[in-house]
Amino acid sequence: MTTPRLRLGIAGLGRGFMLLLPTLAAHPGIRLVAAADPREDARRQFAADFAAATYAEIAELCADPDVEAVYIATPHQFHREHVELAAAHGKHVLVEKPMALSLADCQAMIAAMRRAGRWLMVGHSHSFDAPYLRTRELIDSGDFGAVRMIQALNFTDFLYRPRRPEELDTTRGGGVVFSQAAHQVDIVRLLGGGRATSVRAITGSWDAARPTEGAYGVLLNFDNGAFANLTYSGFAHFDSDEFCGWSGELGQPRDPHQYGRARAQLAQVHSAEEEAALKNTRTYGAGLSLANSGLEGITHNHFGFVVVACDRADLRPSPQGVQVYADTRRYLEALPPPAIPRREVLDELIDAVRHDRAPIHSGEWGLATMEVCLGMLESAATGRDVALSRQVGLPQHAALR
Amino acid sequence: MTTPRLRLGIAGLGRGFMLLLPTLAAHPGIRLVAAADPREDARRQFAADFAAATYAEIAELCADPDVEAVYIATPHQFHREHVELAAAHGKHVLVEKPMALSLADCQAMIAAMRRAGRWLMVGHSHSFDAPYLRTRELIDSGDFGAVRMIQALNFTDFLYRPRRPEELDTTRGGGVVFSQAAHQVDIVRLLGGGRATSVRAITGSWDAARPTEGAYGVLLNFDNGAFANLTYSGFAHFDSDEFCGWSGELGQPRDPHQYGRARAQLAQVHSAEEEAALKNTRTYGAGLSLANSGLEGITHNHFGFVVVACDRADLRPSPQGVQVYADTRRYLEALPPPAIPRREVLDELIDAVRHDRAPIHSGEWGLATMEVCLGMLESAATGRDVALSRQVGLPQHAALR
Ligand SMILES: NC(=O)c1ccc[n+]([C@@H]2O[C@H](COP(=O)([O-])OP(=O)(O)OC[C@H]3O[C@@H](n4cnc5c(N)ncnc54)[C@H](O)[C@@H]3O)[C@@H](O)[C@H]2O)c1
Ligand SMILES: NC(=O)c1ccc[n+]([C@@H]2O[C@H](COP(=O)([O-])OP(=O)(O)OC[C@H]3O[C@@H](n4cnc5c(N)ncnc54)[C@H](O)[C@@H]3O)[C@@H](O)[C@H]2O)c1
Repeated sequence: MTTPRLRLGIAGLGRGFMLLLPTLAAHPGIRLVAAADPREDARRQFAADFAAATYAEIAELCADPDVEAVYIATPHQFHREHVELAAAHGKHVLVEKPMALSLADCQAMIAAMRRAGRWLMVGHSHSFDAPYLRTRELIDSGDFGAVRMIQALNFTDFLYRPRRPEELDTTRGGGVVFSQAAHQVDIVRLLGGGRATSVRAITGSWDAARPTEGAYGVLLNFDNGAFANLTYSGFAHFDSDEFCGWSGELGQPRDPHQYGRARAQLAQVHSAEEEAALKNTRTYGAGLSLANSGLEGITHNHFGFVVVACDRADLRPSPQGVQVYADTRRYLEALPPPAIPRREVLDELIDAVRHDRAPIHSGEWGLATMEVCLGMLESAATGRDVALSRQVGLPQHAALR
Repeated sequence: MTTPRLRLGIAGLGRGFMLLLPTLAAHPGIRLVAAADPREDARRQFAADFAAATYAEIAELCADPDVEAVYIATPHQFHREHVELAAAHGKHVLVEKPMALSLADCQAMIAAMRRAGRWLMVGHSHSFDAPYLRTRELIDSGDFGAVRMIQALNFTDFLYRPRRPEELDTTRGGGVVFSQAAHQVDIVRLLGGGRATSVRAITGSWDAARPTEGAYGVLLNFDNGAFANLTYSGFAHFDSDEFCGWSGELGQPRDPHQYGRARAQLAQVHSAEEEAALKNTRTYGAGLSLANSGLEGITHNHFGFVVVACDRADLRPSPQGVQVYADTRRYLEALPPPAIPRREVLDELIDAVRHDRAPIHSGEWGLATMEVCLGMLESAATGRDVALSRQVGLPQHAALR
């Protein structure tokens, strides 16, 4: 390394943190120096895993002078407050998706970070995954002509995984528009060039026991004339990992013979408290630790089936790279398997903080994705197209590293 | 057979006829008694294959007293005129999709047939395919709860197959909205219960050399609260037969290693005349005959990837039957391989003519599908949802035989 490791503090040691843990632990440019979480078991585990400082309050974490940047992985509804806290203490920030629950919150976060003169990034989102970034590079190469249409489709059991109560309440950021469109729209914006002009969406809320959006269909227009068609079902029985060679969202091998697990598990649960407790059995400090964050035999992360129709090829990001279907031949633009999964997130953060290289996934980028997501909810409610005015493109250097 | 064979006359011995030929020749309830086509080679071939009467003019065919019903497989722009001719002579009619180029034409066709007191059906469309009809039956069983969302996706090389000039001119019925949405919308309407309320669509016309719609994305609302998301690309390089076990649209085995054939063939062509001539090399009477219409080793027809999200299962019609993804298990609701492909079309026609059993694919049904297709074009032009008012549901007896 030519620069010192980035001294990172963690706010929120839950599921989101657990998913980034293999990356955080393995990345050569990162040192985990502190964490904050109200859960004592999580703090104890973190201290044991990393011999680092722990705090019950995020304000204490933000005041720690050893912390350069904070990864905020607390529940959505706290993102704004926690970013503002970090900004007030002059920390750089990586905040989890969805950026926040309103555009006003997103704007406040951007303003606070700008006043602080620190970098703000939004992620992990799957648009960081190497196959999507490589697809963007292939588009930028000009070899395949203009992007015309993007199809994205993902069928999962998202809504039947154990949830906190607010994750099932749209007014508090629940449902698949906040949690899952934040990924899918981010990917589609990356591939479409970023600047969407209008969105039309229909959402589905079909299970009275889980009264939030669990599915949607979306048409999205871009300023360059391209359009995208997105479908998500978090109620799904069919599993679109079938279209991704039975690699899972995290790059893990899936067993196509395993079926119906999420619904079966949830059927054992009889109250919201029991469900939250079930969620906690697979949380850091309560059952899980650094030792459970494996790296073996994985492919790249993905977010379902995606294909980009260009003039002279269809480009299909896959867990192994990018399948290129050109005019006369078809081939895999292979990517080496990820030695460190999701490392692109921390690479982009380090590039910003250490090398002043503007990230793709800036606050403005995150806000633009949220504008589409909130537009989806509005369009579903009004039955109309919603015009978008806060969209941004890609930085000049694009995704190229 | 308990009733005499239906004495069928054919109007138009082109590609559409060729695709139904195996069915027409093998169906035990049909006798081919006459045909009309301006092409002499096609007439000569028909006379040789079926020892039947042939005419250069469709008016003569319609005047033939031996003909009970006419299958009209002439180019779209003639459908209205030819149905009116058949009606004037008191014939029952099966007219190819798309029914016609305007709602006024569809209405005129329905009115003419009603005045004549004869049955009018629109097809073949892929919504006749047994796996879609069986899916409809599974829905009607009530075992899986309400239909919530339908996803339909088809990526083909449709626009690069050899075409007549009008097939590339939207004002004359060209493009994938008239030719392909007529299938996909028909399937989705069957599965959604028939009564769509509004449509929003974006279409793509990306190749100046083939200046018509080659792709689209659609959101469709139904009166029962279900919605559908449709995508079609006829510019595709990626081939969605991959999602149908490499069975082709006609049920034929596809070779996944064959790639890019349509574009490669078309690259040899240097004028619209050469292209029309190329289309004719695979036409009945010019190279093709009854002997070329094989039946071996095929699966059911299909129109790409379709999945119906119901409350308690996702239903995925497939070339082998219906894949049922239920709450606790997944299984194939198998259909026997088709002894006679596309026979459902003629079964429905015979049921109507011989047994007065109202067909699903009536004139009113075909008009409703055209209303959606024309609504797609309007929505794409205006950027707005288009309200639908001419929709019809399924006959009481539904698809059940
Ligand atoms: N990018 C991804 O793949 C991904 C995956 C999962 C979650 N997430 C995101 O991570 C965020 C958290 O979701 P989750 O599923 O991890 O939830 P979770 O409930 O599993 O974890 C949240 C954690 O934050 C802690 N916390 C709560 N209030 C806090 C506070 N004031 N200060 C510090 N810590 C606090 C909780 O004790 C818990 O450990 C969400 O925004 C979610 O969208 C992202
Ligand atoms: N359901 C399906 O799978 C399917 C497939 C292909 C075509 N079609 C439909 O069939 C219809 C014809 O398309 P096609 O691809 O076969 O075109 P085509 O050009 O291959 O065939 C049209 C035939 O009609 C003949 N014809 C032209 N004018 C005529 C007239 N006045 N009277 C009698 N015959 C006449 C032509 O000589 C030709 O043989 C279209 O409406 C099309 O949408 C349906």
